[in-house]
Amino acid sequence: MSRPVDAAIAAIREFLGERLTTNAGLREHHSHGQDTQPPVSPDAVAFIETSEEAGRVLAICNTHGVPVVPFGTGSSLEGHVTPVRGGISLDLSRMTQVLEVNAADMDCRVQAGVTHRTLNAHLRDQGLFFPVDPGADASIGGMCATRASGTNAVRYGTIRENVLGLTVALADGRVIRTGGRVRKSATGYDLTHLFVGSEGTLGVITEIQLRLHGIPEAASAAICQFETLGDAVETVIAVMQAGIPVARIELLDDVQMGACIAYSKLEDALPLPTLFFEFHGTEASVAEQATSAEEIAGSFGARGFRWATGQEERNKLWRARHDAYWACLALKPGHKGIATDAIVPISRLAEAILGAQDDIAASGLTAPIVGHVGDGNFHTVILVPPEPDGIARAWELDKKIVARALALGGSCSGEHGVGIGKREFLEVEHGAETLAVMRSVKTTLDPRGILNPGKIFLN
Amino acid sequence: MSRPVDAAIAAIREFLGERLTTNAGLREHHSHGQDTQPPVSPDAVAFIETSEEAGRVLAICNTHGVPVVPFGTGSSLEGHVTPVRGGISLDLSRMTQVLEVNAADMDCRVQAGVTHRTLNAHLRDQGLFFPVDPGADASIGGMCATRASGTNAVRYGTIRENVLGLTVALADGRVIRTGGRVRKSATGYDLTHLFVGSEGTLGVITEIQLRLHGIPEAASAAICQFETLGDAVETVIAVMQAGIPVARIELLDDVQMGACIAYSKLEDALPLPTLFFEFHGTEASVAEQATSAEEIAGSFGARGFRWATGQEERNKLWRARHDAYWACLALKPGHKGIATDAIVPISRLAEAILGAQDDIAASGLTAPIVGHVGDGNFHTVILVPPEPDGIARAWELDKKIVARALALGGSCSGEHGVGIGKREFLEVEHGAETLAVMRSVKTTLDPRGILNPGKIFLN
Repeated sequence: MSRPVDAAIAAIREFLGERLTTNAGLREHHSHGQDTQPPVSPDAVAFIETSEEAGRVLAICNTHGVPVVPFGTGSSLEGHVTPVRGGISLDLSRMTQVLEVNAADMDCRVQAGVTHRTLNAHLRDQGLFFPVDPGADASIGGMCATRASGTNAVRYGTIRENVLGLTVALADGRVIRTGGRVRKSATGYDLTHLFVGSEGTLGVITEIQLRLHGIPEAASAAICQFETLGDAVETVIAVMQAGIPVARIELLDDVQMGACIAYSKLEDALPLPTLFFEFHGTEASVAEQATSAEEIAGSFGARGFRWATGQEERNKLWRARHDAYWACLALKPGHKGIATDAIVPISRLAEAILGAQDDIAASGLTAPIVGHVGDGNFHTVILVPPEPDGIARAWELDKKIVARALALGGSCSGEHGVGIGKREFLEVEHGAETLAVMRSVKTTLDPRGILNPGKIFLN
Repeated sequence: MSRPVDAAIAAIREFLGERLTTNAGLREHHSHGQDTQPPVSPDAVAFIETSEEAGRVLAICNTHGVPVVPFGTGSSLEGHVTPVRGGISLDLSRMTQVLEVNAADMDCRVQAGVTHRTLNAHLRDQGLFFPVDPGADASIGGMCATRASGTNAVRYGTIRENVLGLTVALADGRVIRTGGRVRKSATGYDLTHLFVGSEGTLGVITEIQLRLHGIPEAASAAICQFETLGDAVETVIAVMQAGIPVARIELLDDVQMGACIAYSKLEDALPLPTLFFEFHGTEASVAEQATSAEEIAGSFGARGFRWATGQEERNKLWRARHDAYWACLALKPGHKGIATDAIVPISRLAEAILGAQDDIAASGLTAPIVGHVGDGNFHTVILVPPEPDGIARAWELDKKIVARALALGGSCSGEHGVGIGKREFLEVEHGAETLAVMRSVKTTLDPRGILNPGKIFLN
């Protein structure tokens, strides 16, 4: 007796041909993201090229009750792309067209497989850029699905604030457009933001209308170092409260800074708690912002305030920051990393980060701290010892850090999403009734439960 | 035989006592907003004071199948508060507590009946302000429900970008909290933004967690006038494309300016197409922004660029702008006003506004144009002659202006909402399938259809 998935595969192959594959290597590639969740291979991988093809695959899978798990670049840190119940991995990485750029309106429309670096390369000669940068060269579709952000969010917002509209393929195969091109609209339910952050559980995002920004006339970056982590955190809080419109403000603790110095060859820096700043604006306003920030940092004992105004020097600094995760892994060869992603109101940031540091010390594990602290968001990369109880010890530490963030009025994830690993925190964070409303929306849009099952919700 | 509404009224009176009223004057007061929709009185008005009371009223009305229509200050321009099918007008105007202000985190929590001016008066001595200002002193709950914005949105965003979380009473009486206090979160569906703009049709918003902003160190306003409307519009487009972070940029056409001069005693101004600017920042950045804007305006032939840096002078200018609607009505005593609210991508703004001016001329009606042009949003206040065919002629003109905006990739409403009058445009704007998804969400959250029936959707 043939399984439902075999019938679905046969039907999909009819129109995708060789773009539907059961090749073992490709199935393995689609069995995991960049996380420590146990890999599970899909029964097949479908490489689609259009929204309409997404709809056709979904309609078939819906008929047969077969799971569909969207896959972009596989850079998820929370198991989003792992087909925990098998089925079809719907690969959008070939949907790489920039469909339109409206330079005068500072918006564009892209297919979901376009990555943010590819988009920015495409935009550069038009004086525009897309600011959301989660570090990895993730696909824009995946970034929408996980409500991603990154270093620039403190100034330019997360992907949520930079999406104007979507094309979404629904579970039953219908393809709808949400939102539009205008900057604001008061007409009807905000389906765009319902799909943003829904992690592939309500529909498959196939096209995105994005807001763009003008490349600032001037930019400068700076690095400064502190005797204590507390001083660095207090500097962040003071800078934000002073209303300085920083483009980026990133914290690295002494362990993370040591890792970055080794990995990225940052000369002249010491393994001390460190802030990276970036300022955008006109020449005059950048200078003014920088002076204000330097004064505040100085009042908290900052040393070695150094400027990087050249493009190359700035790129080196931010490359080091973006490689922080790999720098961590390089600290302990053979260890895997679990990235925590807690976020708290900024007034509670010192408490959250210093508390996390205590928890790390008590755990005996190595876990550098790095974060988008202007938003109150920080990561610890918990290095998992290759020992039988390693993963359990790492998760135990993760839970402590999350529990403190929630107790301080925060969230278990600022930007990585829920996926598999954070499902258990959702009821505490949102409450059972609110979670029940989310489930009812899920049931309405995906009555057969084929869309990325096993994510966001327990069971 | 008693009607279901009588049973509901009796049950609500049991716990609200005299705060449930069938007084004819109060029912009449709750029969309409500030629009030209035919008034319909509710069967009763319930003055609630807590979220829990909202839930109890809703649970009773849901049991009896009785409509519930939320009412804040009654400043809606699209019939939102009119109980077209009778039932209970749920008045939140007594929910006026500012529940908390977290100055360090720049957020606060308010009950839904707090108005934006009351909130700003409350915040002033803390150096903070809430930027969303739709002109009328609307309630924050009503502003959330209609996805309101106003003059500051070009810099600070609409209410959508300034809401962190909500308390919502659902149709069945459950009271849930959505969102939280953190600046961003990637955990679960964005129910907050599903309720924002849902116009009371998915739930009743009873409390709001808001983002606040620091009062800028410096602010200055300016007015400049142009020979032609086209020159004024081209100036707006050029200022936005130059990336000048204007706090406000408002356009008034010659007719509107004439009305404002008469109504608000604006000395030294002529009845010409006019731009009002406001800049926020440090002293130096405000001066720099203003110089850049003045240069651009000059290149389009602006005359009489005049500065208002004092608080009193600025207030006078913006009071005149906020009174534009009343200035229009004063132009033609005995006429009512229908406000259009079209929005287009900014590159199409000249086409949309000059086209609207042609339509107005062809209609033979008076309809001043005023708008939040930095967002591409503009209003015409169509003055309805007190004649038998007056309202029909006004709606005909309204439809032409909307149709052009939609054809230019725009939306029928930038900030007033759909209510009753714009329902017919929604299918063209969003498509039938997208509208069907909105309806399915509606049915899930309000299966008996008691929440503000007759709004957003036709039928």
